[in-house]
Amino acid sequence: MTFRFLPGARDAATRARRGILHTAHGTLETPAFMPVGTRATVTGLTPEDLHALGAGMILGNTYHLLLRPGPEAIRHFGGLHRFMGWDQPILTDSGGFQIFSLASDRTVNEAGARFKSYVDCRYHHLSPERSIEVQAALGSDVMMALDVCLPSTAEPAEIRDAMERTHRWALRSLAARQDPAQALFAIVQGGLSPELRAESARFLTQHPFDGFAIGGLAVGDTRAERADVVALSAERLPEDRPRYLMGVGTPPDILEAVAHGIDLFDCVIPTRMAWQGTAFTSTGRVRLTRGEHRLSDMPLDRECACGTCAHHPRGYLHHLVKCREPLGPRLLSVHNLHHYLDLLARARAAIDEGRYAAFAREALAAVDRHEHDASGRSPGRRGRAAPVNGAASG
Amino acid sequence: MTFRFLPGARDAATRARRGILHTAHGTLETPAFMPVGTRATVTGLTPEDLHALGAGMILGNTYHLLLRPGPEAIRHFGGLHRFMGWDQPILTDSGGFQIFSLASDRTVNEAGARFKSYVDCRYHHLSPERSIEVQAALGSDVMMALDVCLPSTAEPAEIRDAMERTHRWALRSLAARQDPAQALFAIVQGGLSPELRAESARFLTQHPFDGFAIGGLAVGDTRAERADVVALSAERLPEDRPRYLMGVGTPPDILEAVAHGIDLFDCVIPTRMAWQGTAFTSTGRVRLTRGEHRLSDMPLDRECACGTCAHHPRGYLHHLVKCREPLGPRLLSVHNLHHYLDLLARARAAIDEGRYAAFAREALAAVDRHEHDASGRSPGRRGRAAPVNGAASG
Repeated sequence: MTFRFLPGARDAATRARRGILHTAHGTLETPAFMPVGTRATVTGLTPEDLHALGAGMILGNTYHLLLRPGPEAIRHFGGLHRFMGWDQPILTDSGGFQIFSLASDRTVNEAGARFKSYVDCRYHHLSPERSIEVQAALGSDVMMALDVCLPSTAEPAEIRDAMERTHRWALRSLAARQDPAQALFAIVQGGLSPELRAESARFLTQHPFDGFAIGGLAVGDTRAERADVVALSAERLPEDRPRYLMGVGTPPDILEAVAHGIDLFDCVIPTRMAWQGTAFTSTGRVRLTRGEHRLSDMPLDRECACGTCAHHPRGYLHHLVKCREPLGPRLLSVHNLHHYLDLLARARAAIDEGRYAAFAREALAAVDRHEHDASGRSPGRRGRAAPVNGAASG
Repeated sequence: MTFRFLPGARDAATRARRGILHTAHGTLETPAFMPVGTRATVTGLTPEDLHALGAGMILGNTYHLLLRPGPEAIRHFGGLHRFMGWDQPILTDSGGFQIFSLASDRTVNEAGARFKSYVDCRYHHLSPERSIEVQAALGSDVMMALDVCLPSTAEPAEIRDAMERTHRWALRSLAARQDPAQALFAIVQGGLSPELRAESARFLTQHPFDGFAIGGLAVGDTRAERADVVALSAERLPEDRPRYLMGVGTPPDILEAVAHGIDLFDCVIPTRMAWQGTAFTSTGRVRLTRGEHRLSDMPLDRECACGTCAHHPRGYLHHLVKCREPLGPRLLSVHNLHHYLDLLARARAAIDEGRYAAFAREALAAVDRHEHDASGRSPGRRGRAAPVNGAASG
């Protein structure tokens, strides 16, 4: 089956919506969160673990896979699905974000980007056409068009130039795509400017992309700024195609973006935080490194149904994290991904029942009430109360 | 149920034997291999993984658990079984081996050892009585008496002194043991001297220990030297009690020791090698770091029934190991432990059928025929052909 998106029920009081994504590797109920499998693995977890967690679609990073093992190697194994043993849908990014945030010795012009590999110091070229060629070798169900990624705080002229190049690159990507079974999404850019975001959405939606992403967020912006951009971008994207908010974010970010009609999410936060010893719970973040957990018999989250919470008390997890035993991050990854995937499952149920606004308000309040750990939350993010209500009135 | 050992069928042509160990946490068919769970975890694996692998009994390291999280913390959680979520039998070592091989700023006298913690630089004291007290807090099914561990290449006078102190410490351990449901094993020492090993076995077997271990091997000795000490020690140990060869070894070591009537094994090799990117297979070791595996569609071992071999080709494992992705060592640990546990399962079946000598000879020949990687195998080990036949004639 080729790619198809069927929008479903709408929430009563917000723009939140349900949908079903059909791909050659199965269907996905939206809104959905995609665990990040950077190097053909969601760090520390097997495909069986991801199935057990109910993950439906995962993300692979074209930049990292281009450098190692390389697209020819993955093509040799019959594509990324077969290489990593994952038979559900995969979305691959274009490599744009990593080129602009990670690559060293980088030059960019209208043709594309040239950069040095962190693996063997050889130079690679990534153009819109080459990104599509690599993603075709990976065989992902959804490909992303190469975009120019700047910090959202860059100068207005730079942001306009980046947006316009992103548009030209999106059209080149569309022309380069060969197999229509591999969907292609374009990426709305434009920094924090409402005018540029509107212009970007207007331009891209005139072309036959299979879906649209909102990029360039969670790179220096506040939660409130992100929410504004998401709201105004999302409402300019067509109803009949999926909307994907790239690389965002915390549970509050996601709760808010769902209210604006976003269908797809990915973020490294749940897995990266797990490897740093931090768990997400229904009442906020828990840092397992802290001595207060040493003798704790409590599960990470009394309301959680994951295997980690079923079998292992905080005291044991604290011990593993303190000893730098890899089972610690593995168990926290299971828990954090369950937390994210369950959040989206509950969001879908709430939309089905027309009570998304109340659901999101309660979920946000539970976190805000208990979360004493303010690290990673800027004052700007704190400054916006009940953002889901704000979305409902937008 | 308290501890009980029932010797079972004997092999026709070797001293290999079957047995059943009954403990408060279930029974174990012997000969058996115990995966090493140093810090209340078999590195990277969950108790569910170990169950799925068919592990029946695991080993915990008293030294590491004494330092972190400490016996009081583990007692608080109701013992090591509950702390780590493992409901099958556990054997704990005494801490002796680590004190003599790892501890810094160490002083040892007749009373015991004093050493500095690698966790917080505080000083700890470990005497025979303190080791039993700690192991009681851990609640293991089998405790080991504290011994004095020297390199097997130490001077004869030193080895005699260490052996005699080990004997006195064994009797103090026996006197200190409170709960007979926790079995206590003594450790035969005596370096590579046949006379001292015989003397040690003679002394210790006059006392009511629940089992006997052979210690002080795989610390500088060759495979042939080990085999000789195991053979002469094992035949001096009583038929009605389990025999445990501590910390040994490679699959050939184990095949040979089973032929001498050893019932229990533990070794870090399968898990440590996994974290170094090396797999054990029916035809020898495979180093996944090597470029030759980059495009390999083959499983690690065509004859292996483990989950890793069922789902992941060598090329994917090579990729994970090269990227230092923790899923690589995890999948290799599953495979290597399966290799060891399956080797022992096949050994048990061979003993039941009275064809252990032929089984071991074939298994050794398959490894020797294909193993081109001679690293870790000294010329002395190579120098002894068909060691199982040698055992059969002993």
